[in-house]
Amino acid sequence: MRVLSGEAVEPPPIWIMRQAGRYLPEYRKTRERAGSFLDLCFTPELATEVTLQPVRRFDFDAAILFCDILVVPLALGQSVRFKEGRGPVLAPAPVDLKALDASRVLEVLEPVFETVRLTRAELGAEKALIGFCGAPWTVATYMIAGHGSADHLVTRRFALQEPGRFQQLVDILIAASAAYLIGQIDAGVDVVKVFDSWAGVLDEEGFARWAIAPVAEIVSQVKDARPGVPVIGFPRGAGTRIGDFVRETGVDGVAVDWMLPMKEARDLVPAPTALQGNLDPLRLVVGGDALDEGIDSILSAMRGRAHIFNLGHGITPDTPVENVARLVERVRGGAS
Amino acid sequence: MRVLSGEAVEPPPIWIMRQAGRYLPEYRKTRERAGSFLDLCFTPELATEVTLQPVRRFDFDAAILFCDILVVPLALGQSVRFKEGRGPVLAPAPVDLKALDASRVLEVLEPVFETVRLTRAELGAEKALIGFCGAPWTVATYMIAGHGSADHLVTRRFALQEPGRFQQLVDILIAASAAYLIGQIDAGVDVVKVFDSWAGVLDEEGFARWAIAPVAEIVSQVKDARPGVPVIGFPRGAGTRIGDFVRETGVDGVAVDWMLPMKEARDLVPAPTALQGNLDPLRLVVGGDALDEGIDSILSAMRGRAHIFNLGHGITPDTPVENVARLVERVRGGAS
Repeated sequence: MRVLSGEAVEPPPIWIMRQAGRYLPEYRKTRERAGSFLDLCFTPELATEVTLQPVRRFDFDAAILFCDILVVPLALGQSVRFKEGRGPVLAPAPVDLKALDASRVLEVLEPVFETVRLTRAELGAEKALIGFCGAPWTVATYMIAGHGSADHLVTRRFALQEPGRFQQLVDILIAASAAYLIGQIDAGVDVVKVFDSWAGVLDEEGFARWAIAPVAEIVSQVKDARPGVPVIGFPRGAGTRIGDFVRETGVDGVAVDWMLPMKEARDLVPAPTALQGNLDPLRLVVGGDALDEGIDSILSAMRGRAHIFNLGHGITPDTPVENVARLVERVRGGAS
Repeated sequence: MRVLSGEAVEPPPIWIMRQAGRYLPEYRKTRERAGSFLDLCFTPELATEVTLQPVRRFDFDAAILFCDILVVPLALGQSVRFKEGRGPVLAPAPVDLKALDASRVLEVLEPVFETVRLTRAELGAEKALIGFCGAPWTVATYMIAGHGSADHLVTRRFALQEPGRFQQLVDILIAASAAYLIGQIDAGVDVVKVFDSWAGVLDEEGFARWAIAPVAEIVSQVKDARPGVPVIGFPRGAGTRIGDFVRETGVDGVAVDWMLPMKEARDLVPAPTALQGNLDPLRLVVGGDALDEGIDSILSAMRGRAHIFNLGHGITPDTPVENVARLVERVRGGAS
């Protein structure tokens, strides 16, 4: 929380994206008990358990709510299923705008708020609890295409060909996402983060319209409703556009992917905005010198600047648990 | 050629990446006569024909040799096949370094040099002929993984875990690529371009070691051997790192992908280095206002700077031919 207010803290606090996940044996055990992936997201006791597991094991400085960005389209009435090993499948695709129902969003998402309450009650007061949602652009890519993809051609084309209809969808997502984040804050999260995993595929005009403007609106609604709660943005792949993103959205912190060197992110994003990131998750898989060198290079680039240590993308299932322990130890020891 | 010497020319010259390709009916016809895709690359009369087709139809300012970056691993002795609709398949994967044979590269690639000679003879003197190769990093991703992928995890992990062996492969590719480009120059190309389509997935250290250093070495070898022939680099996804790339490789021009706004590329890359790009290929598919606005925004950002108009990535097969005509007309008319 101090870092998100602009303070440089040494050693920097650390958590890792997707820290509650398949690389952890205790996660896999709880996951088996849950039935489907969505059952896990919507069963507060189990979601709380997996949210807390990585903090117990590695003493991370923050827990992040265990959930998925696609609960928002689900709560709006689109069908969302997770197929084992194949990722999410949404139907119909593209989404039928007229069939979306914004009135039941908070009701459907009530189990998520309960997870927040249970987690906050069990989590030590010195640990931050982070809530999150997907950014409208990224969530819309799934709602239009019906599944994930590498280039998001289907949604990019839809947005270029039918900007009016696409704007309608984005507006629905802005309202639902802001209400969802405010609900998480009221249930007890200390910080919220907006994940725009696919912002990077947009061109200049597209980025301004679909990656910056909707997040700016969500940040504004959240800050009007619940002043003082910091917001982290993650416009993955933004590159040089990260400066515009921070300036125009008003986020308190921004997560940096591993393709943007931290020293350049530091130049592009003026203080006191906090920077989070950005170790290549592969270095955590490989370990050894590749890991140590990656960590040291980030720590050295960020000295004296408000910094939250993290990966540049989610941890992968094949990451050895001992490499995560090594990471935490090195980040904490590196500045002593 | 004037733009690549640093001169701002209005209207800017224009060509488009993959301009000889499946969106053209005349290409599809020639392709059918050729047998396999590689047969087309290695049959000088047919490769010349498809190289010239887009220049005839649209009066582009440059022709680019019709070929593929994977002819270099093929010439080194790795098996390369193109499966219809599935992309290239290389075997064995990862490549067996000891089985590579650098001694026959120029002999195997002789039909490509013949294509250059035939094309240069038929192409008007006022048109530039561009030769090319893949950058070692991008070519290596296919040689290690055996196929294309979105995240290049297999090769990134190989490079982190076995940097010594990976460097050996890169060194082999540097030597073969430089010799191949020099052969193209001797056969008659006016400019050479080095395509690093997957540079963007590398982190800071990886980008310096695998995207910048090998291309710097190729540029140096080409310029030592054949001074005065301009080199264009294309480190796709470089983002902010495009400045370092240009400074450290010494390229005369750099192609910009559609994720980096031209006005920011202009700031990151000091004059007189020429900038090429960067219309989102999807705008060319969609046409209409989306196309016109994209074109105008690029022209306006680049006024007064050495600029070659192009796409930010290759043209896609579903692009309507009339949109390409509209693009050329607007770029040429926009400055009149």
